[in-house]
Parts: sequence; structure tokens; C-alpha cells
Amino acid sequence: MGLIALLSDFGLVDGYVAQMKGAIAAIAPQAQVIDITHLVPPQDIAAGRFCLMSTCPYFPVGTVHVAVVDPGVGGARRAVAVRCEEAFFVAPDNGLLSGILAVTPAMAAVELTECRYWRTPSPSATFHGRDIFAPVGAHLSSGVPFEQLGCPIDAASLVVLDLPDCRATAEGYAGAIQAVDRFGNLITNFPGEVVVGRQWRVVLGNWTIPGGHTYSDVPRGEMLALVGSHGFVEVAVAGGCARQVLAQTVGDPVILIGQPSVDRH
Amino acid sequence: MGLIALLSDFGLVDGYVAQMKGAIAAIAPQAQVIDITHLVPPQDIAAGRFCLMSTCPYFPVGTVHVAVVDPGVGGARRAVAVRCEEAFFVAPDNGLLSGILAVTPAMAAVELTECRYWRTPSPSATFHGRDIFAPVGAHLSSGVPFEQLGCPIDAASLVVLDLPDCRATAEGYAGAIQAVDRFGNLITNFPGEVVVGRQWRVVLGNWTIPGGHTYSDVPRGEMLALVGSHGFVEVAVAGGCARQVLAQTVGDPVILIGQPSVDRH
Amino acid sequence: MGLIALLSDFGLVDGYVAQMKGAIAAIAPQAQVIDITHLVPPQDIAAGRFCLMSTCPYFPVGTVHVAVVDPGVGGARRAVAVRCEEAFFVAPDNGLLSGILAVTPAMAAVELTECRYWRTPSPSATFHGRDIFAPVGAHLSSGVPFEQLGCPIDAASLVVLDLPDCRATAEGYAGAIQAVDRFGNLITNFPGEVVVGRQWRVVLGNWTIPGGHTYSDVPRGEMLALVGSHGFVEVAVAGGCARQVLAQTVGDPVILIGQPSVDRH
Repeated sequence: MGLIALLSDFGLVDGYVAQMKGAIAAIAPQAQVIDITHLVPPQDIAAGRFCLMSTCPYFPVGTVHVAVVDPGVGGARRAVAVRCEEAFFVAPDNGLLSGILAVTPAMAAVELTECRYWRTPSPSATFHGRDIFAPVGAHLSSGVPFEQLGCPIDAASLVVLDLPDCRATAEGYAGAIQAVDRFGNLITNFPGEVVVGRQWRVVLGNWTIPGGHTYSDVPRGEMLALVGSHGFVEVAVAGGCARQVLAQTVGDPVILIGQPSVDRH
Repeated sequence: MGLIALLSDFGLVDGYVAQMKGAIAAIAPQAQVIDITHLVPPQDIAAGRFCLMSTCPYFPVGTVHVAVVDPGVGGARRAVAVRCEEAFFVAPDNGLLSGILAVTPAMAAVELTECRYWRTPSPSATFHGRDIFAPVGAHLSSGVPFEQLGCPIDAASLVVLDLPDCRATAEGYAGAIQAVDRFGNLITNFPGEVVVGRQWRVVLGNWTIPGGHTYSDVPRGEMLALVGSHGFVEVAVAGGCARQVLAQTVGDPVILIGQPSVDRH
Repeated sequence: MGLIALLSDFGLVDGYVAQMKGAIAAIAPQAQVIDITHLVPPQDIAAGRFCLMSTCPYFPVGTVHVAVVDPGVGGARRAVAVRCEEAFFVAPDNGLLSGILAVTPAMAAVELTECRYWRTPSPSATFHGRDIFAPVGAHLSSGVPFEQLGCPIDAASLVVLDLPDCRATAEGYAGAIQAVDRFGNLITNFPGEVVVGRQWRVVLGNWTIPGGHTYSDVPRGEMLALVGSHGFVEVAVAGGCARQVLAQTVGDPVILIGQPSVDRH
């Protein structure tokens, strides 16, 4: 029984996600389907990239990830599948996969040119999620060999999303907020390793926030920085919402002050 | 293993949907359950009707659809099951099924009078989803013959929702917006066939919008009309939100100008 | 095949719920997972407690409920599992279980000290849902004996949430609104049994609302009180939203006037 994980910006109000699941059930009735999220902000490839990158590592070996945030649907962007050591990915080639592939290198990639694995040889010009990506994921999960899905392409040619960097400075690191979660925690792009075993603090807007370990290190309502469950440094307010208190959001610059314990990677 | 698809207006915050799923699991532990949506606007039968109509065709043959948007629960409206060639439907008889049944004719219908297939012979007066519709769907999915669910009724007696028409005019068609999706696309009630192979445009409020093929036909931020994945003409803004830009919504009148290629059906 | 039910305040936008499901699938690939809700308001233990209490009774015997609303994660609060006659619960010990355990007494309880049943012996300080609760639930569902999960503790020592009481008065009962659902129905803490076979009414703010049976008892737009599907007295507006019309919310006091037919319990 295969496992298919779905990520999209299709939302939960319309029937789009259900159409994808219906298409999967028609091809792979035994497959187990798990939703990563369908609430990526509409057409926000960077947000989808972060969510995919931070959830994939927790899925079993062999999972087929179907990810669709696809503002260029029906245009020139390629539809691709990628094989890594522990997982498969089926997605538009627009940078959505570039986060996870930086962590888990691609071993092979194909452009999805074999329409016998699509729902129909005449797919909707606006919904490849239903007509191409989900069906291909279902076939892959059912045992169709990866190589049969289409023409091999160079994995190095896959689109990489250009995002703010995390770079070493004299005092520590300079980076940016790369995501904000439901609780309002501000997730930076500083990997947690850079603070291991050190005194450190974070500067964000007008705030300087001491590095800690968990929410209960400080009284309710107080700010702290910590290594969050994504493995990155994040800024939180104990029992509160850092996004509101600090009025910061995705893309805002952030500085980490402290002696680096390991090289940035 | 049966497949049950659920549609409701119960939302995702309260435990209502989970209560339905618990009731299903208690009767049909092997059934696979797929959510169509539970975010139909509260008590909005027309919105539920559109979503059901547009997702059912993508589900495997034999799927049992349990659909509950039920403002008249506990009152005089009938609870029914309907058998079509490729699917079963279990729902209140209030027009919710009238969209899909216009496409996929009913072959038989019953009123749900056999309380041995309910969760309890004394159902809650306010939650037939949990106590009648979901359990009946689970029994049907487990192999209970359709005819045993209750008294046969005339399928022609099922309630039909009265909605704006799509009618031919001298210049093309006059219709209405029948749905707006998460991306703000304005979905009309013009079937896609009416524009095949023709020059056409759409008039909506003060706007005249050229007919195209897909979002990438026009620059980002520009309006276009196209045949959407639902099979109807829709109005979109490339990389944007037509609902906001055009300030139009469900029920607003829309005109299609162009030579019809086929009769309306 | 085990059944695991998940409740949390992790939301549906981020990948947190998917990380829990990935962790479960890695341990118990055959388990069936049903979402109760993940939209408990952030860190609102009382809301989670109500939702859990009102959905559990509809799940099959043997269900493993994993419930995580956990503002004290990483601090001193215990992580526990509880065995009842018909279900298991895995949760932080912060009162989240105190509603359902008042209805379904605990037969045994353990503190989750056996880290071989966790995802990792070094769990994230901020996400025990993924690293402790979900993995323990998956192992339990796969047949690990309850007693092996950790040290036995006294069930009487589990934290109980302090909430407004429902107490008998000369005229009937005094209580509070304990939940508001998606439809805006105001759910009191008066058990439905107190109104059986009696004339009764409810006083809420400046309103006096007659007791009825179901929404269709009154014209559209009119208020009524009834025994809702949760088994508690609730206040509704037929075809409308009582929360908006009455401007009342969780915690607001409410009075029930009428002769009690049974003792309060």
C-alpha cells in the first residue's frame, strides 16, 4: 500500500482537493493519502516550498509527495517528477521543490511527458493538479517505474527559488524571517546548529530577544528566541503571538548575535 | 472496501464532522472516507449543490456520496438516498442533489425510513448527518442493498433548486455567476462547449473581457475569460483575484458575446 | 487495524499536523487516522476539552485519541496516557482530558516516560505532539501494551480544568455558555435531561428564550432553546446565527427556568 502526501494552495472550501483525491482513488484505490496542507496562500511558491521542506523528513521512506502551487499552469513551465533516496516528488518546476532538494539531493528527474499516466490526454489548461500531478503520483505509488513517467532531465536544471540568504557576519549571522506559523512564531532562516552551546540573542526590528530553550523558560507574555521544531531559530512570545507583538513578518531582516559553534551550511 | 465521500457545511472547528466519521467507522471500519468539503457556507444549499455537482464526476464508480447542508433538519423535509448509474447519494431532499442529478440521472430513489440503518432509532432533532445520513451511507457502502434503506419514491419528486438560467440570446448567451472559488475566479453558468472554436468575450458589470485559453495567455494582473476546470466559462485575473478586481459575486448577471457553436444543453 | 483520532490546536496552514501523521505512518502504517479538529483556538485548553468530550462517544471501542493543546510543552507538565473502558487517551496532563474523563472514568493512567516509544529520545522542546504523543499513540494502536508506555500514576492526580458550574436554583438552574459552534449556536452546560418533559425557558443577557425541540419549530430568524446534538441545552436562531443576534459568548452566564424533572448530575 503506497503513501501519497498532498500539498497545494487549493484551499478547503472548493472541491479542487477532492477532485485530486477522486482521481487518485480511481487509479490507486489502496493508496493512503495524507494532506500536508492545502492552505498555502494562493500562488505563494515560497510558502509552499517551506512547508514541503519542513514536513517531508517525517514521512516514511517511499512516500510520493504531490505538491501543487502552480501560478504558471497551462504555460511554459515544466511538469516534473523527482526521485530522491527516500521519497518521490511530483510538482510543477517552479522552485516549489527547491527547499527539500537542497536537503535531500535529487537522484533523477523526468519531465512528465507520458500522457498515458495522466487522467486524460487533454488536461484542463488550468488544473494540472487533478489531470496530471495527482494521477502521475497515483501511478507512481502503484508501482509504475519512475523512468516511464517521461523524458529524463538534468536535475541541475530544476528551478531554484531565490530567497534571502543566511550569511555569517563579524558578530554572528544576518538572515530573514522565512515563515510565520499559526501561533505567530517568527521562523528565521538560521539553522539551529549555529546556536548550539552558545550564549546568543536575536535582533529583530527594535527588539533584542535572548536565546532560550522552550516557551516555559520565560513568564507568560514575554519574548524569547529558541530553536523551533522545524530546526530553525524562531522568535516566540510565551502563551502569546510574536507576529502581533513584534509586528514582523516573512522577509523581514533579522540578526543573530553570538559566537558561531559550527560553520554555516 | 467501499469509498464514502462527505460534503457538509459543518465546518472544521467543531467536532461535527468527526462525529460523522466516528459513526461511519463504527459501522464500516474498512470504508475509505474522503472529504469533499465541510466549508460550504452555513445553510447555503446552492453552494453545496455546485460543489457536489463539480466533484462527483472525478470519483470512482460505486462511490457513496453523503451530503449534508440541511437547514430544515428535524422538520418536514425528507431524508433520501438516490442511486445513479455510477454513484449513490445520501442527503436531505432540499435541492442539494439537483445539480448532479441534472447531469447523472437518478435510476431509483428511496426515503430513509428504515431506522435500523440509523445510528439510533431516536436521532437528534438537529443532527441527522451523524445519526441518519452518515450511518446509512456506511451501511450502503458495506453492502446493504439500496432498496432496503426505505420506501421507494419517485425520483421526479426530488426537490430541484431554482437558480438563474443560462439562455441563448441574439448575440450569444445571458447567464449568471454561479460560484466563486478560493482564487477569486468567477465561475459562470455557461457550459464550456458554447465557446468551442469561436471568437468570444464576456461582459460583466462594466467590464468586457476577451475569451482565452489559460492564465498565462495574458500578462500578470490582466483579466481574461476561459473555460475553467469545472467545465464552465470563468473570469480570472492572471496571478490575481477577479472577485476583488471586478467586485462581482454569486448571482450577478453575465453576458457572453460570440457565435454559438453548439446548442445549449 | 487500529483507529487513531487526532485533536489539536496546530491549525491547517502549517505542516504540524502532517508531521504528526507522517510520524504515525512511519510506526503504524496500517492505522486509520481520523481528524477530530486541529482548529481549537491556539492554546485554548477549555475549547479542546469540550470538543474532545463531545466527539469521543461516537468513536468505535478501542480508538486511541491523541489530543494536543499544550501551552506548557517543554515545561513541568506531565505527558500521560489514560485507559478507559472503551478508549485510550494520549495527551498533556493539563485538563484537556478532564471533560471526557468525567463521563468515562479512567481505569489506569501512566506518565509517558518510556522514550523508546517516542519518535526520538531527544524530542523537540516545543513539539511533543510530533515527537512524543503521536508516536506513543501509534505504538499503542499497533499493540504495545498500555502499561509499557511509562510509570503508573494515580488517575485521581490528573489535572481537572476549573470551569463554570451548572447548579440547581429555586427556579431551575444557573450555568454558563461552554461553547459556540460554527453556526453560532450557544451551547450551555445544562445537560439535556433537566428539561425532559417540562415547560422551560432560558434567560441570557436581556433575552428570554422559550424551550423547543428543533430549528423548524419557529419561523426563520426567530430564537429558540433546544437540546442540541451534544446533549446540552443550546440557544439557536432558526436559519441564523445566535452568537451575532444575542451578542453572547463562551463563559457568559445563563439561567434555565422550569421545574427540574431529574436531579442534576
